[in-house]
Amino acid sequence: PEDQGMLKLEYKGQFQLLARDDGASPDGDDSAAEFNFRRNRIALMGAWGKNFGLYVQTEFLEDNNIGPFAVSDGDNSDFQILDAVARFRVDERFNVWVGKFKYNFTRENLEACEAPLTLDRSLLIRAPFVSTRDKGVAVWGDLLDGKFQYRADVMNGRNDSASSPDSNFRYTARAHVSLLDPETGYGYKGTYLGKKKVLTLGAAYQIEQDIAFANVAAQTGAVDYSAWTADLFFEYPVEGVGTFTVSSAYTDYDLDDAYKGADPDSGTIGLTGEKNGSYVKAGYLLPNLPLQIFGRYEDWSFAEFDGIVDQEVDWIGGGINYYFRDQDLKLTLEYSAADFDKESASVEDFNTFIAQLQVIF
Amino acid sequence: PEDQGMLKLEYKGQFQLLARDDGASPDGDDSAAEFNFRRNRIALMGAWGKNFGLYVQTEFLEDNNIGPFAVSDGDNSDFQILDAVARFRVDERFNVWVGKFKYNFTRENLEACEAPLTLDRSLLIRAPFVSTRDKGVAVWGDLLDGKFQYRADVMNGRNDSASSPDSNFRYTARAHVSLLDPETGYGYKGTYLGKKKVLTLGAAYQIEQDIAFANVAAQTGAVDYSAWTADLFFEYPVEGVGTFTVSSAYTDYDLDDAYKGADPDSGTIGLTGEKNGSYVKAGYLLPNLPLQIFGRYEDWSFAEFDGIVDQEVDWIGGGINYYFRDQDLKLTLEYSAADFDKESASVEDFNTFIAQLQVIF
Amino acid sequence: PEDQGMLKLEYKGQFQLLARDDGASPDGDDSAAEFNFRRNRIALMGAWGKNFGLYVQTEFLEDNNIGPFAVSDGDNSDFQILDAVARFRVDERFNVWVGKFKYNFTRENLEACEAPLTLDRSLLIRAPFVSTRDKGVAVWGDLLDGKFQYRADVMNGRNDSASSPDSNFRYTARAHVSLLDPETGYGYKGTYLGKKKVLTLGAAYQIEQDIAFANVAAQTGAVDYSAWTADLFFEYPVEGVGTFTVSSAYTDYDLDDAYKGADPDSGTIGLTGEKNGSYVKAGYLLPNLPLQIFGRYEDWSFAEFDGIVDQEVDWIGGGINYYFRDQDLKLTLEYSAADFDKESASVEDFNTFIAQLQVIF
Repeated sequence: PEDQGMLKLEYKGQFQLLARDDGASPDGDDSAAEFNFRRNRIALMGAWGKNFGLYVQTEFLEDNNIGPFAVSDGDNSDFQILDAVARFRVDERFNVWVGKFKYNFTRENLEACEAPLTLDRSLLIRAPFVSTRDKGVAVWGDLLDGKFQYRADVMNGRNDSASSPDSNFRYTARAHVSLLDPETGYGYKGTYLGKKKVLTLGAAYQIEQDIAFANVAAQTGAVDYSAWTADLFFEYPVEGVGTFTVSSAYTDYDLDDAYKGADPDSGTIGLTGEKNGSYVKAGYLLPNLPLQIFGRYEDWSFAEFDGIVDQEVDWIGGGINYYFRDQDLKLTLEYSAADFDKESASVEDFNTFIAQLQVIF
Repeated sequence: PEDQGMLKLEYKGQFQLLARDDGASPDGDDSAAEFNFRRNRIALMGAWGKNFGLYVQTEFLEDNNIGPFAVSDGDNSDFQILDAVARFRVDERFNVWVGKFKYNFTRENLEACEAPLTLDRSLLIRAPFVSTRDKGVAVWGDLLDGKFQYRADVMNGRNDSASSPDSNFRYTARAHVSLLDPETGYGYKGTYLGKKKVLTLGAAYQIEQDIAFANVAAQTGAVDYSAWTADLFFEYPVEGVGTFTVSSAYTDYDLDDAYKGADPDSGTIGLTGEKNGSYVKAGYLLPNLPLQIFGRYEDWSFAEFDGIVDQEVDWIGGGINYYFRDQDLKLTLEYSAADFDKESASVEDFNTFIAQLQVIF
Repeated sequence: PEDQGMLKLEYKGQFQLLARDDGASPDGDDSAAEFNFRRNRIALMGAWGKNFGLYVQTEFLEDNNIGPFAVSDGDNSDFQILDAVARFRVDERFNVWVGKFKYNFTRENLEACEAPLTLDRSLLIRAPFVSTRDKGVAVWGDLLDGKFQYRADVMNGRNDSASSPDSNFRYTARAHVSLLDPETGYGYKGTYLGKKKVLTLGAAYQIEQDIAFANVAAQTGAVDYSAWTADLFFEYPVEGVGTFTVSSAYTDYDLDDAYKGADPDSGTIGLTGEKNGSYVKAGYLLPNLPLQIFGRYEDWSFAEFDGIVDQEVDWIGGGINYYFRDQDLKLTLEYSAADFDKESASVEDFNTFIAQLQVIF
């Protein structure tokens, strides 16, 4: 309504040309190429004064053939409200957020989708039984002039009341220390493009009890979920030389060895099941040209992946960002290689090239 | 386009914490809890002068585990345009609405979703084979200084041309008399928060011929649908004492006893099939504090519910609304109990607690 | 963001009352009637100066019973982002469009959905394995004061990497010559309502290699796709007499006779498979009244349609447009008849009446 200020509208798109050297055609061994959106979003933002705000964002993806680890016919068509959160602020030390938004676990999931350092966040960092967002309530705040930040939330976690052993919430706590310039927002960035000097160390812990059965058929072997992560972010602009960025994290997702059960819940195994791993990413932004060179290395161990126990995958990629108008108009090129420890008929190493145009309007 | 005035944008969210004492887990007897949206809407409103307006509203709901009468894994993900209506006004006596919008039957379905007296409208008041909205054309108007209102519409009703006995429209007529302050809009409210003195008596009738088969397998026994309702709404603010609200309705949905057929269409039985029932709701708004206490009682008889013929359910609930900024920022707490006349392995009495934050922006 | 100008919001709806004399009820021979949307869209438009623009448009359709060639229960519910395109303009001679938008093939598919001459574009003109839009990159421009326009694009075409013989892109080229007033935009119109004198001749060619198997079961017989079209548009206002419009096109879609294969891909046959045909449409807009009378004739030959090889269909229709506020508020009435060369139990001639209210806001 008028007396509350207008809602502001924004569009955020990431349109890609993707090419993969494996996984296509009926035999699964041909190369694939497609144009598609990685993100395709309309956002609404509103504020009543300083203490109450709203953020709502839609996402539409369809017919995505080339996924992170598989090639398909891509018959998806998903339009959703990705974020819908009421934001109450007492002061910078105490905020309460209510609705659907990102949970407070890994730094990289909390980095803005439109401001990563590399093409995108880790393909593998997502927590089990949820997407990048969840529904619930979070409290958070910045203390000591923004040098210290705390966050805690209670959210749905797995929300399958008919299939779960028990209908429990998921609890997360996170904190960070910023030794140079503070990072005071709820969302981090993957790069500040040389506008800040940042050294931030963070860690988080997450639990949900009785999340799944190790034996679904018999409905026995209820397992608990717990996870922890630690992360580091460093960015430093050197006058006349450029801006250097290094960021790394380790994450461990534990599901009580559900994969050893007779009929483990499918959510406890595979890409988003029991696993641990890390990433290191680094970037260099030229001093006089909005060109950023980046590289990224990830190393993950899976309890079970596509029928193979103790699978490991190395993922290495590199590329460039060219910022025509900062993040509002950006071109990214990235080449990457995924290398499995154990190959099989359906699990083969592959290489991917992606060119991406980002537009925020 | 610019020469026609801007479209106005609005967000309307109802975010809930729900807890139910029954229906969860594989055995169906555990309690369930979740965070979720009851409503999650973006609305567009426009007007060209006084005689032509537009109202468009989206709705997004997903993964709703705790339903009115069942607990599930909630794998729904429904984004839709809920309302899209062109509104032509000759004068207050004659309006024509065209598009998708609420049909003119029960008062409570016509009460604004964001201005109920209790947490929500009746779980059971919805007409057969449609949602809360339908598509078609309505004419309506206010006569005698708003003391009398008439409405009539022709809409799809059941829109299943391949399965229905015949592809007929549904016809509805409704009228009300307002003895104190008039209620002149298309939408009613569940409470005017003491800003009006209202005593309105209304009634409506609805029919659709050849709506379903009493024997689907044999494609015989085409039944007609008819329904009627009568309702009363009273709200009276007493200075220094507070505002009192009482509202009640009786509704009868008749489907020619299709449930007695050999293979009745599933839409003729169950929660939205043949049934009759009533609600009474009452509220008291404090004079000096935006706190409203409410109670609600419903009593419904179903032709057939979950295999049980002549099932009855009593539903009783109570709670409070706290209006931080009228309906724009409201907290509601409600506790309710559903009591079946005949319990079975899958039909058991249950209790529900819901805390809801409503935000309109 | 504010420094980039606001996004502009627009609603575009086409709400219809449809009646068909065949195809409904379990026996498929009854008549059907429904209210529904043909288009139900929210559009966002933005511009940063003259050289960069954005166009994003959503579409929502649901429960459509009466389709172009069949009557069903209509259980669809499709909300999508139909267009999302970043538009870069060097000058009028060279534009680059990136994202999801209409491909550059037939004139009628490129005519604005809200500015057709007849009720709608041809039911049958759509290319195989895509919708009216596709994802990719196009370049286009106007030369010689707009007398000549060229367009070329590379897009996904069929995007089914797991099922296709090969994951190839689709390439399209189109050009037109405007002998009177120029048509310089990406989108054409079906009528300029007498504001222009236009005589435009256009042609286009489109190919995609290894698009489908003639024998899906054996995964053999990969076929190529190619298509061509030629079209003419003429509109001439005569003062005091009215505006005359005539438009015609021929289109040939070739899929290497895949329908002769042992198990042809379903996309190579039927309404959007191998076929050729044409339309002629004509209109007359009165000089002093915003009333336009129109007629339309189409003639199509299908390689295979509903099990019948070499099926042909004639489609003839006529009606009126009444422009209350040009295209922003328009009422259209159209009656049409579809006549099959060979009728069968499931393929019967039918007649359709549609009344449509168009609102752009």
